[in-house]
Amino acid sequence: MSFSTDDGLLLTKLRTLMKHSDYVPQSLNAYIVPGGDAHQNEYVAECDKRLPFISGFSRSIGTAVITDTTAALWVESAYFMQAKEESDASWKVMCQGNVNTPSVARYLCKVLKGPSVVGADPYLVNAGCWQDLEREFHRYGHVLIPVSTNLIDLLWEDRPRRTANAIFPLEIKYTGRSVTEKVVELRDKLEEENTNMIIITDLDEIAYLFNLRGSDIACNPVFFSYAVVTDTEVFLFVNKSQLTRAAKTDLMLESVNIKILSYKMISSFIRNKLSRFSGNVWLSTRSSHAIIRLVPKDRRLIKTSPIAKMKSVKNKTEINGMEESNLRDSSALCQYLCWLEGEAKNGRQTEISAANYLQMLREEQENYIGQCFPTISSAGPNSSIMYYLPTPETDRKITTEELHMCDSGAHYKDGTTDVTRTVHFGTPSKHEQESFTRVLKGLIAITTCVFPENTKGSTLDILGRKALWDVGLDYNHGTGHGIGMYLNVTEASSGISWCKDEDPVLVEGMFLTEEPGYYEEGKFGVRLENVMRIVKAETPQKSSKDRFLTFKTISFIPLQRKLIEHSMMTKKEIEWLNRYHSECRYKVGKILLLQGYEEVYDWLLRETEPI
Amino acid sequence: MSFSTDDGLLLTKLRTLMKHSDYVPQSLNAYIVPGGDAHQNEYVAECDKRLPFISGFSRSIGTAVITDTTAALWVESAYFMQAKEESDASWKVMCQGNVNTPSVARYLCKVLKGPSVVGADPYLVNAGCWQDLEREFHRYGHVLIPVSTNLIDLLWEDRPRRTANAIFPLEIKYTGRSVTEKVVELRDKLEEENTNMIIITDLDEIAYLFNLRGSDIACNPVFFSYAVVTDTEVFLFVNKSQLTRAAKTDLMLESVNIKILSYKMISSFIRNKLSRFSGNVWLSTRSSHAIIRLVPKDRRLIKTSPIAKMKSVKNKTEINGMEESNLRDSSALCQYLCWLEGEAKNGRQTEISAANYLQMLREEQENYIGQCFPTISSAGPNSSIMYYLPTPETDRKITTEELHMCDSGAHYKDGTTDVTRTVHFGTPSKHEQESFTRVLKGLIAITTCVFPENTKGSTLDILGRKALWDVGLDYNHGTGHGIGMYLNVTEASSGISWCKDEDPVLVEGMFLTEEPGYYEEGKFGVRLENVMRIVKAETPQKSSKDRFLTFKTISFIPLQRKLIEHSMMTKKEIEWLNRYHSECRYKVGKILLLQGYEEVYDWLLRETEPI
Repeated sequence: MSFSTDDGLLLTKLRTLMKHSDYVPQSLNAYIVPGGDAHQNEYVAECDKRLPFISGFSRSIGTAVITDTTAALWVESAYFMQAKEESDASWKVMCQGNVNTPSVARYLCKVLKGPSVVGADPYLVNAGCWQDLEREFHRYGHVLIPVSTNLIDLLWEDRPRRTANAIFPLEIKYTGRSVTEKVVELRDKLEEENTNMIIITDLDEIAYLFNLRGSDIACNPVFFSYAVVTDTEVFLFVNKSQLTRAAKTDLMLESVNIKILSYKMISSFIRNKLSRFSGNVWLSTRSSHAIIRLVPKDRRLIKTSPIAKMKSVKNKTEINGMEESNLRDSSALCQYLCWLEGEAKNGRQTEISAANYLQMLREEQENYIGQCFPTISSAGPNSSIMYYLPTPETDRKITTEELHMCDSGAHYKDGTTDVTRTVHFGTPSKHEQESFTRVLKGLIAITTCVFPENTKGSTLDILGRKALWDVGLDYNHGTGHGIGMYLNVTEASSGISWCKDEDPVLVEGMFLTEEPGYYEEGKFGVRLENVMRIVKAETPQKSSKDRFLTFKTISFIPLQRKLIEHSMMTKKEIEWLNRYHSECRYKVGKILLLQGYEEVYDWLLRETEPI
Repeated sequence: MSFSTDDGLLLTKLRTLMKHSDYVPQSLNAYIVPGGDAHQNEYVAECDKRLPFISGFSRSIGTAVITDTTAALWVESAYFMQAKEESDASWKVMCQGNVNTPSVARYLCKVLKGPSVVGADPYLVNAGCWQDLEREFHRYGHVLIPVSTNLIDLLWEDRPRRTANAIFPLEIKYTGRSVTEKVVELRDKLEEENTNMIIITDLDEIAYLFNLRGSDIACNPVFFSYAVVTDTEVFLFVNKSQLTRAAKTDLMLESVNIKILSYKMISSFIRNKLSRFSGNVWLSTRSSHAIIRLVPKDRRLIKTSPIAKMKSVKNKTEINGMEESNLRDSSALCQYLCWLEGEAKNGRQTEISAANYLQMLREEQENYIGQCFPTISSAGPNSSIMYYLPTPETDRKITTEELHMCDSGAHYKDGTTDVTRTVHFGTPSKHEQESFTRVLKGLIAITTCVFPENTKGSTLDILGRKALWDVGLDYNHGTGHGIGMYLNVTEASSGISWCKDEDPVLVEGMFLTEEPGYYEEGKFGVRLENVMRIVKAETPQKSSKDRFLTFKTISFIPLQRKLIEHSMMTKKEIEWLNRYHSECRYKVGKILLLQGYEEVYDWLLRETEPI
């Protein structure tokens, strides 16, 4: 979907609504439009793309703020250039995370003259943000008020309907644990904190807990829902007509009695329930202000949801599925790279056509469901845009003259994948080789690192960057993120990044990506990404109490040798590379031969020769 | 000072006071005794050693909790063994920071039966801690109440009087900036946050702001005080008789009008002032609950004090002083090590006598004031205790048979120092050499690292540990801390540690220590520590926006070559070592020759031979 950019007019209309007593409890001097939806999803449904609608910036990641005279848009540094190009002149684009960029609150406190009223949809702002805004505004004499009618929705005449796709069960052979078992563990966690109710607002946590999957948001196997678990009851709030018969049956067969209520009931249910229910309520730090304010202040425990950790630490069945699906996915990637090497010589393929072919190859793999995010397929200068998505206007040929970067992933019934390879089908420049090698050194440093149990992910972040930092370079994104088991490709509950707000410790059984990169504006970009499982480390020495962990890579796609500057690699790094390549050869080779892809197998042999 | 350990009796008396209506507003089921004082100092005055008095544990770092039936003591892992040895059987010692150790709140919620009343001295608990405790207690039906009469003080019959030593001015040739200039900058910071008053509770911030020094707390050049700065006024709360005539004159000569009020006036002053004063008040996150609760909730900005950053980023004069004083200090350390090498052969020196001799050598240096912490002088197994302090009972000979570790530092009028060397005067074992080399690799990795401006200190922490982690070893303390300019040796406002709560970004002009280590219980310990200045880095490549920083070491004491296992060092590490040693030779050598220490100069030449 693309949005008109006549937002000069839109902004005028919005400013009228901001003063209109039919829609706002008080006349607003500023209105905040967050990029997310009511469930703080990273990707949002079409009907929730309010930020793109109002700003022209096509991603739903960021925050817009409209005052009577100004309009400003905060985006992460990775999207800064794109946002500047896509939004029109009415907008001032702010590079979030840059130390010199004012926060939304600070900006407003600067531009608002005299005590002012700022409004926002309380469903779209999480509780922590709401409180921070409120506090900062207060110091300047401003107030933040919840506006229950979303003003963007009023303006948005052809707003798509909310998706309501089928919700189906995921069999225990994939999930490894029944809903009942998960609820029992959850109740233990509630008890540990002296709470006896939890309100669950994250869609992937609900999908995980109930062993259900849906497709209400493109690329994300989730469905619009809320859930409430108390020490005696379990409630799922969902549009009932979306549940397949199989889903209903499976839920009924669980020995915890699961009551299904309508999605829209959540607020009135909580209000009602709490009036008849004593005890404390666990609310996720990610829950919206709208949900959290339903619970009396003195009964709230606002803390990372216990399900976030349960979900991020995979059980044996899930571990097995993640490894199998990532291996099958690697075989599709190898087929892709082998095919593209031939095509590049003829210049017949573009970023989009290549991505489509890759998807076709994945579709042939067992248990395939669909993409887990739109493929970042880029060539030459386009690859310098970190999260580039090709459009018909920008679609570039993949040739032997330039680097090609492909960052893609898929859902399978038994796992989710996410890999990036950067390749050159001709002769790379020395500078491209050196850049690639620095990124590769980062990848190897993370993969091979050994760390004590309970280390935070952020602690490891520098290992991915050090080879770049050494010469004055860096990348403006995290080094890795948690990944779901046929769930969201980005699980907020773990990761390797210094910029995470919440950074839980790393635990055996978690799966993370690692994806160091380097981007030279307007020239080229390099990113390498694998999925890794956290496993116990065998260390030559033992300290008295610490257990040590390390990573096991589960993506097996060759790292292009022609892009490696051997003289920059240490002996240990070369050993790792050769070992990794021999694993690729053995593991993926077996699948390719079984499936009769002999040409690809030959390519694999060539690409995995030791250096 | 040592405390009796008949705390069975003390605890009985304390439990009586906990119910005594003369002293507590409500009968207490539990009483919390924090280790710190009213200003959250790391080191406390004798009169504030309430935790040692009640628990027997001789350090004032930790928290004691006494209920009707239990007594528990939380200490950092570095002090766990010591605390277990020093406290008697009535106490359960808890290893703070260990994931399996319950927090104080969680512990109390477990042991208290039914809704209970917990008390604490509100001056000794910072506002954040108080709030966290309050919240957690609330979920369990308990309440936390401020008890203004400190119950330990009631028990403590021969409690020392509060120190009230002379407060003298530090000349501008050492501070580089007048009080007026500092106050002007401070007011800018207040305005940026729309506050027009700040209450300053950290003693080193007050000493810094007013260019004064004192000696109310051993090893810390500070004095008991509070300060309040508004957009028009400056108030210093201090025992007036402590101010020297010179201090009074200097303060009078400043063009900001500084009013001096009595230390005891602070609470009534704030109450009075706020009733006649509108606007917001900046309070440090480190301020006590007693101070913070004086300010109405809706007028508080609770945030790291702006003075913390002003103080941590040194100006040109301070930079020069830090470099000069650390160099002079290095020359004293070289004299010490040369002398001790000879003494060790005769076995004439012990941990204590050697530390005394070192202090004598330092006293001969220009501008010497005193120790900045008690010297950690240890031999053999004693060095495996991270923060060991020798006592007459444990005092061990320094011989050619065992490692000797010396962690010491001093205040000079122009700077503060903090260095650790581990040496062997005989033949070290292979294992000792390997351990030393891993610690040295950590030291070099930190010193040589290049990082973008605005990197957090915690990001670099792993570099100090990696060579140990690789083989399954670690150290249970931070990798480095900020250091003051003739101020506290530990400045909380910067550091290199994954365990910091607040972790501001690293900025050019800050000074940090780095001190990786390794401790093998009951056998030996290795620690190496230098002071470093953050400087701009010259990088071979330039990324578009980031400026890069790096460290410049300012301690120049040879790292004992016989303890280095050459085969474990990379070429680059050896190059760094040889370069560092040639700097030691040149810089310290010059001083030694000027002062006529030819024997030490010969030692230095030997110890700095390239490897």
